[in-house]
Amino acid sequence: MQVYLDNNATTMCDPLVVEAMQPFFSEMYGNPNSLHKFGTASHPALSRAVDQVYTALNASDKDDIVFTSCATESNNWVLKSVWIDKIVNGDKNHIVTTEVEHPSVLAACRFLEENGVKVTYLPVNDQGVVEAHTVKSFITEKTALVSVMWASNETGMINPIDEIGLICKEKGVLFHSDAVQAVGKIPVDLQATHIDFISFSAHKFHGPKGVGALYIKDSQELTPLLHGGEHMGGRRSGTLNVPFIVGMGKAIELATANIQETMAKIRTKRDRLENALVELSDTFVVGDRENRTPNTILISIKGVEGEGMLWDLNNGQIGASTGSACASADLEANTVMLAIGADNELAHTGIRLSLSRFTTDAEIDYTISHFKGAVARLRAISSSFALQKPTKGGSVQECELHH
Amino acid sequence: MQVYLDNNATTMCDPLVVEAMQPFFSEMYGNPNSLHKFGTASHPALSRAVDQVYTALNASDKDDIVFTSCATESNNWVLKSVWIDKIVNGDKNHIVTTEVEHPSVLAACRFLEENGVKVTYLPVNDQGVVEAHTVKSFITEKTALVSVMWASNETGMINPIDEIGLICKEKGVLFHSDAVQAVGKIPVDLQATHIDFISFSAHKFHGPKGVGALYIKDSQELTPLLHGGEHMGGRRSGTLNVPFIVGMGKAIELATANIQETMAKIRTKRDRLENALVELSDTFVVGDRENRTPNTILISIKGVEGEGMLWDLNNGQIGASTGSACASADLEANTVMLAIGADNELAHTGIRLSLSRFTTDAEIDYTISHFKGAVARLRAISSSFALQKPTKGGSVQECELHH
Repeated sequence: MQVYLDNNATTMCDPLVVEAMQPFFSEMYGNPNSLHKFGTASHPALSRAVDQVYTALNASDKDDIVFTSCATESNNWVLKSVWIDKIVNGDKNHIVTTEVEHPSVLAACRFLEENGVKVTYLPVNDQGVVEAHTVKSFITEKTALVSVMWASNETGMINPIDEIGLICKEKGVLFHSDAVQAVGKIPVDLQATHIDFISFSAHKFHGPKGVGALYIKDSQELTPLLHGGEHMGGRRSGTLNVPFIVGMGKAIELATANIQETMAKIRTKRDRLENALVELSDTFVVGDRENRTPNTILISIKGVEGEGMLWDLNNGQIGASTGSACASADLEANTVMLAIGADNELAHTGIRLSLSRFTTDAEIDYTISHFKGAVARLRAISSSFALQKPTKGGSVQECELHH
Repeated sequence: MQVYLDNNATTMCDPLVVEAMQPFFSEMYGNPNSLHKFGTASHPALSRAVDQVYTALNASDKDDIVFTSCATESNNWVLKSVWIDKIVNGDKNHIVTTEVEHPSVLAACRFLEENGVKVTYLPVNDQGVVEAHTVKSFITEKTALVSVMWASNETGMINPIDEIGLICKEKGVLFHSDAVQAVGKIPVDLQATHIDFISFSAHKFHGPKGVGALYIKDSQELTPLLHGGEHMGGRRSGTLNVPFIVGMGKAIELATANIQETMAKIRTKRDRLENALVELSDTFVVGDRENRTPNTILISIKGVEGEGMLWDLNNGQIGASTGSACASADLEANTVMLAIGADNELAHTGIRLSLSRFTTDAEIDYTISHFKGAVARLRAISSSFALQKPTKGGSVQECELHH
């Protein structure tokens, strides 16, 4: 049996999505910007895709949703263009973000710091959540932008985006959220939440890798990151990736049409897996289940190094992660676990399991069995664990987190 | 019969390319940055794609070729990062480019001008070619970058890239070329030409839309446009678009493996079409055939407005263009024709026909016949043409171009 439990890194492209994209490679292949029939043939499918995205997020007709190549592009676009528009050519000098953002936000912020921008990296609480009052207290008159992820890729914890949105509105500060882990996993209603920009990406909800989008409230101005022709109203140039835009539309429709029902099923499987795993001694899972994306578990197993665990799971044909795939190459401590106050040793023990609507009950059974065996095998060879007295596992609050 | 003659705007994805990409949507779908088997399963295919691109362009192992989402991204990356590295954080202040670049270069340059950069837009000669001595005469001690397209999207005319490369090397100035219309159409040998950066895109040579690349000589430093994780050695972040990178590798191999032979066949068809069309009175084609990409014709038909001609061709199921698809939305005069000295009326008469290896002899026959009928129909209703005495058509030099 093969079990893919790394759906926060990327997902399988739904075969229905692949089917929807197929005609746009070698049949309706014209450039949609061309005036002839080869170009206009794809217009109905593109319009439908745009409608599917607006509907899924309850965006208003006054808003813009611009297709990009990925959420990394969307994140870089917002951060760098707000820098150009409000800092280089304006009177602001400050951006507020958090310690636990995706590398695309953190690295872009470091680049802006090198170019004279003041960036505040907010801490998270012991649940891994950014608190709204913390955001409020760091906004100054010089703040151009607040950028806080909607849900964490590593823990699945959901930030208080509604509250932060209201604070930003009141303070007159632009608000961006990297919503990559929210869209398709929890309801996102862009008319109910005050937010200026969100980034998201199709490959996190069973669409193809290589297409994302940026939502822009009220179609407000934002200097392009990719200057060029008149594509997407001059907002983002480059020949439209027709098949992937069509695929993104189909994928977001499939992911959100019955999101409550779909997610309830995933949550049931996730909870069953989580309940079984925390029966192991000296384990804890980061964050309350109720405030977490329904597919995610970040579990720490004392005495078991994350990479060793990954290796054993991989031998059992189970794909998991120690955290963000974007930081997998370097075997560093889990930064989110460090941010919530875990010590360095504990922060090396995090394993992220992330389910999808394609995860089956049989796969959960198999994973529970293999996972328990792996912990036993690895603890048997772990000298650090052998010296300690095992205790019953539980939630993060019950564990030794050194603040 | 349907005839697609707009291959400089975009091409049909080769069915062999579609086939090569297929397994990477729903079978080998892992994130290649992940450590587990789902992630590493695509590594051999990615390595093969990288090899295919290096081989096609004769790049050296010391060079970097970084996959992007399109040539527009690659162009924006070079221009904006050279700005950051050499102008904002360096002692340069000047960029040299040409009047006839693709909108992605021109619009990015206008953005840089708004932010204090001095940009020189070089003119072209009556062949639509940028002359090397012109480039040389405008380089100053403050010049950070020269950016000259390898071949024109509109005319197909090939610039003296070897000569310009040597001038830039001698002057110690970075040299970038938008090679979108060169790669796959003419031999590009990156060890024979001195060039620091080239941009190119798969969808111009029967690969998918939505994947491009930037070649970086000697892996020299260049601030990323998309900051983030460690993808592509930290040069360009965002989850790898595995299917399209595999598709780009396959496409560039198919396009370049027998490029001389393939292009000779296309050239024969192009020349037959061109010979037939210039038999019409008062027509001319921009630029010498010998110095043009073998698939391109930009023809001007006196008294026939380009948009009317497109409309008539479209009714005959022939897809053509008045110029760059990236500027199709606005019915303006052809900027390249204005640049080579055509008056405004003549610059509204350009029709670009661009062939591919899939263009058949039967399609050429059909196009000749329909095209001649269209010219007769449109001239019959053109008041401006009726007042003039027809003369025999010919090359650009023989026509009334107002310099």
